[in-house]
Amino acid sequence: MKLLEDLIREKGIIEHGEVLKVDSFLNHQMDVKLFQEMGREWARLYAGTGVNKILTIEASGIGIACVAALEFDVPVIFAKKSKTKNIAGEVYSSTVVSFTHNNVNDIIVSKKFLGPGDRVLIIDDFLANGAALLGLIDIVNQSGAELVGCGIAVEKAFQPGGKRLREMGVRVESLAKVAKLEDNYIEFCD
Amino acid sequence: MKLLEDLIREKGIIEHGEVLKVDSFLNHQMDVKLFQEMGREWARLYAGTGVNKILTIEASGIGIACVAALEFDVPVIFAKKSKTKNIAGEVYSSTVVSFTHNNVNDIIVSKKFLGPGDRVLIIDDFLANGAALLGLIDIVNQSGAELVGCGIAVEKAFQPGGKRLREMGVRVESLAKVAKLEDNYIEFCD
Repeated sequence: MKLLEDLIREKGIIEHGEVLKVDSFLNHQMDVKLFQEMGREWARLYAGTGVNKILTIEASGIGIACVAALEFDVPVIFAKKSKTKNIAGEVYSSTVVSFTHNNVNDIIVSKKFLGPGDRVLIIDDFLANGAALLGLIDIVNQSGAELVGCGIAVEKAFQPGGKRLREMGVRVESLAKVAKLEDNYIEFCD
Repeated sequence: MKLLEDLIREKGIIEHGEVLKVDSFLNHQMDVKLFQEMGREWARLYAGTGVNKILTIEASGIGIACVAALEFDVPVIFAKKSKTKNIAGEVYSSTVVSFTHNNVNDIIVSKKFLGPGDRVLIIDDFLANGAALLGLIDIVNQSGAELVGCGIAVEKAFQPGGKRLREMGVRVESLAKVAKLEDNYIEFCD
């Protein structure tokens, strides 16, 4: 998606030749008009697939998912990072290892909001190692819902998450795929 | 706002006569069409005030703020709950005591995104004791930006936050104000 790639070139900041900061428009300050265009693109890509729920994870996926959901006319569910284990059996839970934050989170989704018959699109801001997406997919599978695919803003295609998911048969639509990141240099996949 | 009050009556769950759960449409599963109507109502209420930034706090404020921001055509900034103190001086920070979660969080906003000349609307899902809003207002004041007001989905008017903020001279526009909460009974302010 050219609009997103242009914004990354213009406003993205590369740190230590490997970290891409897009916090001025994607995940701290948020450009909601951009999110609207991203939502339209995912709605075009996933047209006719019968998506009836969008699933994301707190915190930085929520804004993108909610604005995109307007284009699909479906509700959003966000997985919560939880310190309390599922005791009452009221939630689906999975474990996500974050390489960015160097920690482990249990994520939970209430069983009230996902189940057989649901057709789920997962949306998130970044795909690198795929840990968050694997946790969300685990939750979709536990619920008996059907995973339609994933909508990602920025995929770091030089990290293994995207390849791993596609090899599992998961449809992944990333709007900007970064092929290479160096100091002051960024290259996108064709 | 009648639409929101009707949804609270229909889908809200009262626990222990004091907790109002609205997680089926407001802050776990999210009804983005409702958020759009809420955004239109705040845009009407705050018309002509020159709002150029919306500020919220992770996680459950983000979806409401982003969808509402489309109606204002302004970016959203969300305050992050942080475990690391501000060492480099790159962020504004404040402390929020959460009665709901029984913990204390430092919240941070990058100095890049708020400053003198900004006219800020704060949006959040709930107002009870006002702790989160006071932290966000503290950050607006530190930045030198102007606080235009607050847009709240559900105010628990029987708790002291709203009164305290209005006595400080802060404009607070709550779309549903709960006057009284008992088991199986909810009463809204006129």
